[in-house]
Amino acid sequence: MMNQMKTRIGIYGYGNLGRGVEAAICHTSDMELAAVFTRRDPSSVAIQSPGVPIVMTSELLNWKDRIDVLILCGGSATDLPGQTPACVKDFNVIDSFDTHARIPEHFANVDTMAKVGKHVGIISVGWDPGLFSLARVYSNAVLPTGKDYTFWGKGLSQGHSDAVRRIIGVKDARQYTIPVESALASVRNGEQPELTTRQKHTREVFVVAEEGADKNLIEQEIKTMPNYFDEYDTTVHFISEEELARDHAGMGHGGFVFRSGTTGMKNEMHHIIELNLKLDSNPQFTSSVLVAYARAAKRLYDEGRCGAYTVLDIPPAYLCEQSGDELRAHLL
Amino acid sequence: MMNQMKTRIGIYGYGNLGRGVEAAICHTSDMELAAVFTRRDPSSVAIQSPGVPIVMTSELLNWKDRIDVLILCGGSATDLPGQTPACVKDFNVIDSFDTHARIPEHFANVDTMAKVGKHVGIISVGWDPGLFSLARVYSNAVLPTGKDYTFWGKGLSQGHSDAVRRIIGVKDARQYTIPVESALASVRNGEQPELTTRQKHTREVFVVAEEGADKNLIEQEIKTMPNYFDEYDTTVHFISEEELARDHAGMGHGGFVFRSGTTGMKNEMHHIIELNLKLDSNPQFTSSVLVAYARAAKRLYDEGRCGAYTVLDIPPAYLCEQSGDELRAHLL
Repeated sequence: MMNQMKTRIGIYGYGNLGRGVEAAICHTSDMELAAVFTRRDPSSVAIQSPGVPIVMTSELLNWKDRIDVLILCGGSATDLPGQTPACVKDFNVIDSFDTHARIPEHFANVDTMAKVGKHVGIISVGWDPGLFSLARVYSNAVLPTGKDYTFWGKGLSQGHSDAVRRIIGVKDARQYTIPVESALASVRNGEQPELTTRQKHTREVFVVAEEGADKNLIEQEIKTMPNYFDEYDTTVHFISEEELARDHAGMGHGGFVFRSGTTGMKNEMHHIIELNLKLDSNPQFTSSVLVAYARAAKRLYDEGRCGAYTVLDIPPAYLCEQSGDELRAHLL
Repeated sequence: MMNQMKTRIGIYGYGNLGRGVEAAICHTSDMELAAVFTRRDPSSVAIQSPGVPIVMTSELLNWKDRIDVLILCGGSATDLPGQTPACVKDFNVIDSFDTHARIPEHFANVDTMAKVGKHVGIISVGWDPGLFSLARVYSNAVLPTGKDYTFWGKGLSQGHSDAVRRIIGVKDARQYTIPVESALASVRNGEQPELTTRQKHTREVFVVAEEGADKNLIEQEIKTMPNYFDEYDTTVHFISEEELARDHAGMGHGGFVFRSGTTGMKNEMHHIIELNLKLDSNPQFTSSVLVAYARAAKRLYDEGRCGAYTVLDIPPAYLCEQSGDELRAHLL
């Protein structure tokens, strides 16, 4: 990428994901952080990159000519459904929208506005949706006869932790989703098991109770909570606030995607494709995927394309700093 | 794919790979086998699909209007370097060219002729190169700071088996490449080891000796063979012709691709991406990948594109029967 302008990235929203994007940019040589946009008072926001402007989101449109790709680092529940369509009118954008059931609607909204503004919007980027979706699509295409399995964890679930925190008498909580080893082994062994929700994952909860709270009652309420816990085997541990801070600050995660399929005129041959992620930091890894797709967004835009895209629409080479020649010589 | 013409596939060369392509087409609903082309006497070739024409390769050009994509099922050493550029002038083609060092040259030759004939040629399709290349490229893009590891096996190596068969006194032989478990464990554990050739794979050879041959001499000759065996720990077993036929007819294979990388301003977080294949039949699985990319070739051609492509240049959705809407709703 010598003698070429770096791709100028804007970060929209500076939480764990925004901080991760900032760090991921430092691992590239063809991108630079142009500005961080925040809804907070910029003077109250401390970033890791000296000299980079911290700007109120209300100033965003003044940066149209100084940002190549805007990476939206808000949440899927309330931020992204409005922000991505609004921003894609004026910027190329990337988001990590991960509410699977609402992806078609979000895609349509982003596509409409992207075409109005002639920009590129790549949605649902991360590891699931994201790298896990790629694994599902490639392996379904290659093995059309077969079964898919996705396991998550071991990892912290933010949504489930929040649900436990809403129980009366709970001061703080962390919930881990854990794949069942025997289920993983059965899939890996080619047995193509039918697995219930309970057979795939267990849940482990660490709770700091308010003083004097009824721990038995809290445990019962967790274990019977509809949708969140009632279909799972759940273990509840009561710990101190200090233990929670000391032992449960990490944001590691991961998971497994399997395709177990057959080929041959009589389905006589069996094959297993497994993708497996072990992540020390869920937000930092997600951010690294976002930054790779920012490179692709710039390239699509430079080719004159516009509209909504997902990871399924983008050639793998578009994510790379290296040229096609370099990729064919060294990574193919 | 209702109310739509099926994509008409031609198979060029009917060995293990050609038979695999024929079977893989039966696992799709949008493709059909139009003809099998062979250099042998067609009356001596028995295929699995009743009614499909078996045609001499000399007749190929008469099929220009009856074939959408020609899948070349020859070998990389002597067949494909000539066949792929020759055929892509008149047909969209897919090949599984797997001599990594010669890919840039093959790509250039195919690209030139594809552009002359305005057709699409997708080269080096399979699992390595192929799915393993995709894993390397995606994971390098996402984790630019890190190390790559590729392990093959356990699986039969045709090239090494052939090398052993050329030794005087050897009647027949099979060679298996086996990844070293402790090396796999170290990589999976995030240790980022520096591994020598010897530390990554062992080799196991099953030999049928000619009557009266000097087995010690054969074993020495195998273990010291330059390039093929001298850098590996090799175990040699002498077995009977019957045992070889009974226990070593399988063509299973597989392997592992890892990216072990770090993120964060201080590389403080570590992540591991692992792709793992377990294949009952190397040629059938490779064929299944070829057929998925035949779908992509047709689509690229219908869009008016031409030239040489590899798996790195093709959007994952192009491999799928399903529409973009269906993929976003169900697999993303």
